[in-house]
Amino acid sequence: MDIRTIDWKNNQIRIIDQTQLPQKLIYVNIYRLKDLWQAIKIMQVRGAPALGAAAGLGMYLGIRDYVCSDWSKFSRKLNSVAKYIASSRPTAHNLFWGIRRIQAAALANKKQSIVKIKQIILAEAKLIMRQDMAACRKIGAYGAGLLKNKARVLTICNAGILATIDYGTALGVIYSACAQGKKIKVFSCETRPLLQGARLSTWELHKQGVDVTMIADNTAASLMRDGQIDLLITGADRIAANGDTANKVGTFNLAVLAKYHGIPFYVAAPKSTFDLTIKNKTGIKIEMRKPEEVTSILFKRIIAPKKAKTLNPAFDLTPHQLISGIITDKGIIRRPYLQNIRKILTKE
Amino acid sequence: MDIRTIDWKNNQIRIIDQTQLPQKLIYVNIYRLKDLWQAIKIMQVRGAPALGAAAGLGMYLGIRDYVCSDWSKFSRKLNSVAKYIASSRPTAHNLFWGIRRIQAAALANKKQSIVKIKQIILAEAKLIMRQDMAACRKIGAYGAGLLKNKARVLTICNAGILATIDYGTALGVIYSACAQGKKIKVFSCETRPLLQGARLSTWELHKQGVDVTMIADNTAASLMRDGQIDLLITGADRIAANGDTANKVGTFNLAVLAKYHGIPFYVAAPKSTFDLTIKNKTGIKIEMRKPEEVTSILFKRIIAPKKAKTLNPAFDLTPHQLISGIITDKGIIRRPYLQNIRKILTKE
Repeated sequence: MDIRTIDWKNNQIRIIDQTQLPQKLIYVNIYRLKDLWQAIKIMQVRGAPALGAAAGLGMYLGIRDYVCSDWSKFSRKLNSVAKYIASSRPTAHNLFWGIRRIQAAALANKKQSIVKIKQIILAEAKLIMRQDMAACRKIGAYGAGLLKNKARVLTICNAGILATIDYGTALGVIYSACAQGKKIKVFSCETRPLLQGARLSTWELHKQGVDVTMIADNTAASLMRDGQIDLLITGADRIAANGDTANKVGTFNLAVLAKYHGIPFYVAAPKSTFDLTIKNKTGIKIEMRKPEEVTSILFKRIIAPKKAKTLNPAFDLTPHQLISGIITDKGIIRRPYLQNIRKILTKE
Repeated sequence: MDIRTIDWKNNQIRIIDQTQLPQKLIYVNIYRLKDLWQAIKIMQVRGAPALGAAAGLGMYLGIRDYVCSDWSKFSRKLNSVAKYIASSRPTAHNLFWGIRRIQAAALANKKQSIVKIKQIILAEAKLIMRQDMAACRKIGAYGAGLLKNKARVLTICNAGILATIDYGTALGVIYSACAQGKKIKVFSCETRPLLQGARLSTWELHKQGVDVTMIADNTAASLMRDGQIDLLITGADRIAANGDTANKVGTFNLAVLAKYHGIPFYVAAPKSTFDLTIKNKTGIKIEMRKPEEVTSILFKRIIAPKKAKTLNPAFDLTPHQLISGIITDKGIIRRPYLQNIRKILTKE
């Protein structure tokens, strides 16, 4: 598409600063690992697949200027960089997956010179990006069949171009359906507290010419009851072996509402978002973020009394029982999830 | 309590300007009817019971300076004032109820002099206020029994002191339980778009010394699943003969989530909120408000792209099937609602 969430340019990472959207489209260059850590933490770059790429490129930033000649020393450095990146955000699985891909690529080439291993690490990070782009296109192609002409789709947060390298997962399905000539109407939940639905999804869908209406999160149930929603699609930050899914807080609310109204609820995510080492939702750690995200709007407009207490989980957990299907780059996975996830994701 | 949402002082209406809370507690004097209309429209004064009082006092403002000597002319004027006030907001039943109370009081005294009828109208408006205060205390007393010591209650919007003359409906139940020495923990949904939960409920609960935690509306489902909520109580703007309830948008979402998690969901409202002329929810008109309430935060911080489309219903409809009981000043009404509402509300 015509914007690039994260890229490798002039020997540094270039990202869109998503905290500035929709007012300003600003690209930021990142040369130092600690600046990347901060960019992830404050969500200048966010979205599970984009974080996979950020982790890969970050691993390279972390070792690029490290001078040593033997593997064991280099390997220790690589592990400390990995730990540091992993400490930025605890829930999105792609972050850890990206780190492990780089570690595995380095280990497989440990007999090579350190200079060579560094090149291999950068190449692997770039490969993660290319593969994510391809995966999103496949998710789009598999998912588009679920959308009829004139379908009305509800989504939350941003699982679009801005959450991936390109094209998106949940929104990729919509772009793909539109490319097939279907008219799709999207409702974008604004997604408090950080308003990714209002700021990011509404912005990118509009930019791509898709008919989008933003709503307060509280309006979702009324829309469903009034028969205005045919289908829900959201992204995912981590999917357990049984299909239980962590995604932006508010997703579980929507899944319950969809169930109540008999509307299909789909999750869209690449293979890299699945964490088969985790049995079910109880194994997924939920990131708690600063109270100020809730007691203010984007740290500017204060909306609550001073000293107001709050709870601010960034994600919630949707049990697989509420999910109609998971749209992946390997196909749409349906019940029984425990068997089908393993079967579909492990086939090459 | 120590604040007074709406009052009659020095021959004019005095209200708290609720658009300024929680930053500033500002009282505004209203002498002209058109200023009251505007104050209702932009929600400087809001909350169904407070609007009942505003309607009563507004009827007096509207005829106070009208000079005539015969009833039929006066009656026409009164009707035009009624229509004007009724045009401010379409959903809250108390507004229409307040208007009709004044009309009935005037009609019953049509043989009196116009000067005398004007006095009767002001007296009736003051009576509405006193009766609402008494009704809220009764709602509190009936509802407090539902709350055990250490109960954790989730609410939305503001059905407290600031929505009534004093004490509140949903929050009145909490104040009443606290007055019995119970420790109550309240979770207040921030209530987008206009954030009455964050700005008003969190503020007044904190001011009254109640343990309150504000949350993004999206966090409600997670709290319920984590076993952190024992009971929900919300206010109501209009209740149909069968118990179907219009209340702040987001209430229906919570009712569905409560049902899914097996948590009791209560509505608290005085008799004046019931509209027995309406069979069920299909008869309730939902007020649609300006897009800017959704595309910005309180008209200041813009959060969506220019020209973003939105839908902004101020209320939603909760079917009676999802309501565990309605806490009124006549007692707690339970299923079957159609019979019990009529039975309990018509007994004197």
